[in-house]
Amino acid sequence: MTPSALWSKYTEIRDRTMALATPLSAEDCCVQSMPDASPIKWHLGHTTWFFETFVLERYEASFEPFHKAFRVMFNSYYNAVGEKHSRPQRGLLTRPPLPAVRDYRRNVDERMRRLLERPANDDALRSLTVLGLNHEQQHQELMLTDIKHLFSQNPLKPCYQTPESYPPAPPTALEWHDFEGGTVQIGHAGEGFSYDNESPRHKEYIQPHQMASRLVTNGEYLQFVDAGGYEDPALWLSEAWDWIKINQHSHPLYWLGKDAGWMEFTLGGVLPLDLNLPVVHVSYYEADAYARWFGARLPTEAEWEHAASQQQISGNFANNNRFHPAAAVSAGLVQIYGDTWEWTQSSYSAYPGFYPAQGAIGEYNSKFMVNQYLLRGGSCATPSEHIRPSYRNFFPAHACWQFSGIRLARDITMC
Amino acid sequence: MTPSALWSKYTEIRDRTMALATPLSAEDCCVQSMPDASPIKWHLGHTTWFFETFVLERYEASFEPFHKAFRVMFNSYYNAVGEKHSRPQRGLLTRPPLPAVRDYRRNVDERMRRLLERPANDDALRSLTVLGLNHEQQHQELMLTDIKHLFSQNPLKPCYQTPESYPPAPPTALEWHDFEGGTVQIGHAGEGFSYDNESPRHKEYIQPHQMASRLVTNGEYLQFVDAGGYEDPALWLSEAWDWIKINQHSHPLYWLGKDAGWMEFTLGGVLPLDLNLPVVHVSYYEADAYARWFGARLPTEAEWEHAASQQQISGNFANNNRFHPAAAVSAGLVQIYGDTWEWTQSSYSAYPGFYPAQGAIGEYNSKFMVNQYLLRGGSCATPSEHIRPSYRNFFPAHACWQFSGIRLARDITMC
Amino acid sequence: MTPSALWSKYTEIRDRTMALATPLSAEDCCVQSMPDASPIKWHLGHTTWFFETFVLERYEASFEPFHKAFRVMFNSYYNAVGEKHSRPQRGLLTRPPLPAVRDYRRNVDERMRRLLERPANDDALRSLTVLGLNHEQQHQELMLTDIKHLFSQNPLKPCYQTPESYPPAPPTALEWHDFEGGTVQIGHAGEGFSYDNESPRHKEYIQPHQMASRLVTNGEYLQFVDAGGYEDPALWLSEAWDWIKINQHSHPLYWLGKDAGWMEFTLGGVLPLDLNLPVVHVSYYEADAYARWFGARLPTEAEWEHAASQQQISGNFANNNRFHPAAAVSAGLVQIYGDTWEWTQSSYSAYPGFYPAQGAIGEYNSKFMVNQYLLRGGSCATPSEHIRPSYRNFFPAHACWQFSGIRLARDITMC
Amino acid sequence: MTPSALWSKYTEIRDRTMALATPLSAEDCCVQSMPDASPIKWHLGHTTWFFETFVLERYEASFEPFHKAFRVMFNSYYNAVGEKHSRPQRGLLTRPPLPAVRDYRRNVDERMRRLLERPANDDALRSLTVLGLNHEQQHQELMLTDIKHLFSQNPLKPCYQTPESYPPAPPTALEWHDFEGGTVQIGHAGEGFSYDNESPRHKEYIQPHQMASRLVTNGEYLQFVDAGGYEDPALWLSEAWDWIKINQHSHPLYWLGKDAGWMEFTLGGVLPLDLNLPVVHVSYYEADAYARWFGARLPTEAEWEHAASQQQISGNFANNNRFHPAAAVSAGLVQIYGDTWEWTQSSYSAYPGFYPAQGAIGEYNSKFMVNQYLLRGGSCATPSEHIRPSYRNFFPAHACWQFSGIRLARDITMC
Repeated sequence: MTPSALWSKYTEIRDRTMALATPLSAEDCCVQSMPDASPIKWHLGHTTWFFETFVLERYEASFEPFHKAFRVMFNSYYNAVGEKHSRPQRGLLTRPPLPAVRDYRRNVDERMRRLLERPANDDALRSLTVLGLNHEQQHQELMLTDIKHLFSQNPLKPCYQTPESYPPAPPTALEWHDFEGGTVQIGHAGEGFSYDNESPRHKEYIQPHQMASRLVTNGEYLQFVDAGGYEDPALWLSEAWDWIKINQHSHPLYWLGKDAGWMEFTLGGVLPLDLNLPVVHVSYYEADAYARWFGARLPTEAEWEHAASQQQISGNFANNNRFHPAAAVSAGLVQIYGDTWEWTQSSYSAYPGFYPAQGAIGEYNSKFMVNQYLLRGGSCATPSEHIRPSYRNFFPAHACWQFSGIRLARDITMC
Repeated sequence: MTPSALWSKYTEIRDRTMALATPLSAEDCCVQSMPDASPIKWHLGHTTWFFETFVLERYEASFEPFHKAFRVMFNSYYNAVGEKHSRPQRGLLTRPPLPAVRDYRRNVDERMRRLLERPANDDALRSLTVLGLNHEQQHQELMLTDIKHLFSQNPLKPCYQTPESYPPAPPTALEWHDFEGGTVQIGHAGEGFSYDNESPRHKEYIQPHQMASRLVTNGEYLQFVDAGGYEDPALWLSEAWDWIKINQHSHPLYWLGKDAGWMEFTLGGVLPLDLNLPVVHVSYYEADAYARWFGARLPTEAEWEHAASQQQISGNFANNNRFHPAAAVSAGLVQIYGDTWEWTQSSYSAYPGFYPAQGAIGEYNSKFMVNQYLLRGGSCATPSEHIRPSYRNFFPAHACWQFSGIRLARDITMC
Repeated sequence: MTPSALWSKYTEIRDRTMALATPLSAEDCCVQSMPDASPIKWHLGHTTWFFETFVLERYEASFEPFHKAFRVMFNSYYNAVGEKHSRPQRGLLTRPPLPAVRDYRRNVDERMRRLLERPANDDALRSLTVLGLNHEQQHQELMLTDIKHLFSQNPLKPCYQTPESYPPAPPTALEWHDFEGGTVQIGHAGEGFSYDNESPRHKEYIQPHQMASRLVTNGEYLQFVDAGGYEDPALWLSEAWDWIKINQHSHPLYWLGKDAGWMEFTLGGVLPLDLNLPVVHVSYYEADAYARWFGARLPTEAEWEHAASQQQISGNFANNNRFHPAAAVSAGLVQIYGDTWEWTQSSYSAYPGFYPAQGAIGEYNSKFMVNQYLLRGGSCATPSEHIRPSYRNFFPAHACWQFSGIRLARDITMC
Repeated sequence: MTPSALWSKYTEIRDRTMALATPLSAEDCCVQSMPDASPIKWHLGHTTWFFETFVLERYEASFEPFHKAFRVMFNSYYNAVGEKHSRPQRGLLTRPPLPAVRDYRRNVDERMRRLLERPANDDALRSLTVLGLNHEQQHQELMLTDIKHLFSQNPLKPCYQTPESYPPAPPTALEWHDFEGGTVQIGHAGEGFSYDNESPRHKEYIQPHQMASRLVTNGEYLQFVDAGGYEDPALWLSEAWDWIKINQHSHPLYWLGKDAGWMEFTLGGVLPLDLNLPVVHVSYYEADAYARWFGARLPTEAEWEHAASQQQISGNFANNNRFHPAAAVSAGLVQIYGDTWEWTQSSYSAYPGFYPAQGAIGEYNSKFMVNQYLLRGGSCATPSEHIRPSYRNFFPAHACWQFSGIRLARDITMC
């Protein structure tokens, strides 16, 4: 990438972040609705802190932080960098005010511009910048999921954006695609950017299996609900059962009441539940229980990546500004990319031969490699250029505020 | 009070509320820093809800709520009125935006004006209006204590207002004032407004005792700290000891670090701890432990009221806009009113013959008559006209985010 | 009391403790069913520790503890004595085995005998011994309430003793006894033993009022339950309402199911609920709510003591070995003593002029003087000689595993 | 196996269970020291319940439960069987007394004998019996770990058995054994008993790697402790760091004080920490952190099983009655079996093609397949005939009360 191409990419992504915050008031940007989520203002500050800390501090001749306190306030979890503001207290930061965080962004952007314009800019600078941009794209998705969660808690059920109306689109029938067993290669291949946790590319042995042609729909999931799925302990992992009972879950996170028919809270406000669309905002626990009830299972990450690497990367991404899954209307193996993240049965661990990057950047991915499960393929809240076959997203089994859905798989011997 | 006098009082108090919010951004007004505190925006809405619910709904010919959802959102604890928004979730209400709550205030004010202007306005209307104004004054004080708590959690340690500088003022020596024993009367007397919990006026027998001439100072309290007061279980009630250990308290709430000398967080930001000023933001537990260490005790509420009823109501109140206690520089029994609330050893209970008001208004005071302790005399955050000798404030023994301080008493036989 | 009379009293009370443990296995004696309760074995050890620590250590010429570790294990809350075993972990002490604790008792008894036989035994020794015996009687009552709680948790619903059958005994009608207002004296008077918290005797002013002739019965309380008492927030203190909702209380602690009619768990196992008997095992919250529903209130401790001091001390005490309240079948002001402890509306605080005893013994009562409410009159689990008009028992408002019941009072002006 | 061989195996294993309880009093057997552990009496009842429920109920002509209430009390987690006694309340069951549980065992044993003697006994009966015996062996190990935990909480630090003295045995040097990469088969092979979760045997691809010749010793782990291992967040997974900070861990579970040198609590009481022995009672978090600090990693389960299947099954098992790991004194790849369970980096999930057994038995293993990590090889508390190369034990990452230790692995490219 030429220096000017990098700078152009930089401004495009940084502007997109601000554009996502446009529909929101300073109040909306300030509040944290649960410990797992962060305020929008914090996302705006933290993504900027990332460039300031990992790029400017290293490359600016006479580095001065924009504001000393921001160094702590906007650090997420990088112990090697120093003190961190306690995560559950991010929502108390009414100061700095939102305009001051915008100033912080502009200041860092200007300093980044000067750095990237320098003739001598080196590979490490460029690759740290690219890392920062990928990091920013991840936070773009979190901004959408976090504001959705906040708004869902509000009795006024605010709209993030005006809901558009889409014609009814009955999904294609669910079909099963066969995959042979054998040794396959997974992990990042090629030249483009990838995270350290996607490497090294390595061999895995997969069994003969089938994958469902598309995501599970709301209509299909509703059958599970109506069949008493949430009342039958035999369908649930032991800790999943505890989770649904303690939290009194009896349907996906954003489904609402059912007296006047099922509704769903979306970024366009409360809408009737569209049975054609993929079910979304389910936890690993729910995805696993649904699969068991159906007589199938979740794919492994190797199975998923093997299938995905044979597909074009296209789908319903955040670039559409729809921010909601869409129905599967084409034949073939579809919705692999976009719409919803797909839970796999694989827990998050290091690939054989993996070693984390040196220094604080090495904390990016590797310190979460326990008690998390892998999601693949991106969602309607993911920027399209952010995704690739080897991309590994991960969340705890109870997480459901992400755009997470279900693709089924089954062993070939089942048929 | 004439109708126009009442309306004039109404506008004065309602304007004061908005004036207190002036230094704050919409972000500052939105956030809740702990379950005991409420966001400023919620205070603005709730005090308005009070007039809408208890006055307008009863007196307007064709009552329509300003916004149906506000009826739930801004209800604090009145079960008889209907559903309530969960207290710990008040900080999630980024919508309605602050300007909409200001509109709500203006709308209700205008409707109140029309009501109060009516020739036929009756005693009950007028007395509910006065109740609403007193209620609003209580929330004015809470706005100050809640914003102080929020700002204290922020690493930027923001100022609510520019700190003024006061000349050093060494306090007068602590002296003991004698009071004879015998039957006294306490409870509200006379014509003015009072809450139901101040009645009926009744007899109590008090013992011969002494009261300290002024509040305990920071300097005196620091001696207790330096003497290891927070490390000696013999000085603490059993549950107080658990409280300081679990919460790791070793000094009053807003005292800070001591490496470079003790500092104190105030509404004017972080300032050096002024040893001349009264200690403030102590819990009942701390007030009780300090008194035990000193060899004294806290006064009973009857003792306090008996002494206070012989004093002029004057002192360092919120009207000063100082919002911080001041040193006692006069002789005699001083600081009875203003500066800090004074913990008494009396738990909050009904006076003999007490019956709460009928209907939802009856929930105002009586449902809190367990496990709370009485504070008397108002503080630097209390409007001066809000206080009277019989005024009973009450908080749980662990509460320390109020402007609460210590006046000592002792039995006459001690001397 | 002569030395031999004291020793005879000592053996009588110490033997009674062991007799209470007779129906229990070593397993029954070892387990702790909740943090508020203690295992029987711990009670046996702790009452012995009390004599060893406060008497033997002071009076034996060459004191050696029976077992060094017991000094920590059996200390309840005396900080001045040294380390304590964590209260919630008392149930983990499977060692020492029960016989070793019996040996500990015998050893300390023998050493106490030698001490009390000495010609030179002094007043302080004798009064500490008497304190130890009164302490032991308190634990006799706790043994009964703690084993009742443990057995209530067991699906086998074991009997502590064979239930005797009593003929049906309809209670006398509830009548109201008038008491004039005026200055009365309360607090311990006379020569016998009393705790420090019953002194000094002092004056209080009481209002004209009425007291109910007897305790509230199960039948009367059931009317409150059937009338939806547990579903109406207007009847409950705010924190009481939270308590019944969080803990899902809808009836007194040991009432069971109601499908086949109400049953009650007793020390004689599960029996049909006898509507003639006093309601028992209610919390302060429940007593207060019942009184509000009835249109009455709880008595103050001064009112109670004033009435009680005019009565003979007789009633249904632990000496009967019935361990359950009995119906009120006589006319007059009855059941003042025995049957159930009677909640008063008074919180536990120091009498005017009170100073705790010096040293560790001073921790006995005074460190609990916050957030507890007074109960008066003893119960069917209290030894008769342990009670007196001035006796002050105290528990937190939520406590209901004690034999606590309800006597109503009301202001004279109500009539 | 002939009927008489099966009955002989049955009595041998059932007797062994009772023998393990012999050193314990009824009190020791009754108490539960934490929710993860169970009382010994409950283990004795539950293992018996297993035969009664899954064998007798199915095969006895006119089945009558020994005691109806035991059906609920001794059910662990089998939802398909009916109600369960709440796990954290297992320690409240002072009744039935221990002798009654022994009677229950004898009764079920006698009925099992009659069943197994029948000429017509079928394969399913025999295989359910074998399952019950394997289940009982698992509980034999839990009895040892649970009693160890209970005793560790007791200030008297009781001995389960008299400690024997072993001559000092310096371990062999740590060496690395090479393994080639390629497709291997893992999962149960052959005729003997295995759990459903060990099947089907299937292929996995493993990378070239090395495994350490023996377990990590106390001496080696102490170097990690002394180097500040518990103070450096860079060494710990993010949730591991939270875990050690919240629980204030700074060394393995049963290490004690270090003022007078490190000691260790064992089933033979408190002994000096033997630096020659394998470190034991470490969590997955600690095993992972140690490996990272060392510059290695934990093996995967496929790597482990591949190596183990080339070894003789012999080692320091429960049969020795030593119940503590022993030093590695031989050359080669040693301690694969016995001494301590070995944490792998693999999370617990279904093998490809796995389907759980039908009915309640299907709940045995499969419902725990989330957020647990695999341990392999058995320990000094495991019966030797219970283990095999394909055996999969699993516990949550924080579990440390099992005899769990560390074997290191590393990628071949590291060298």
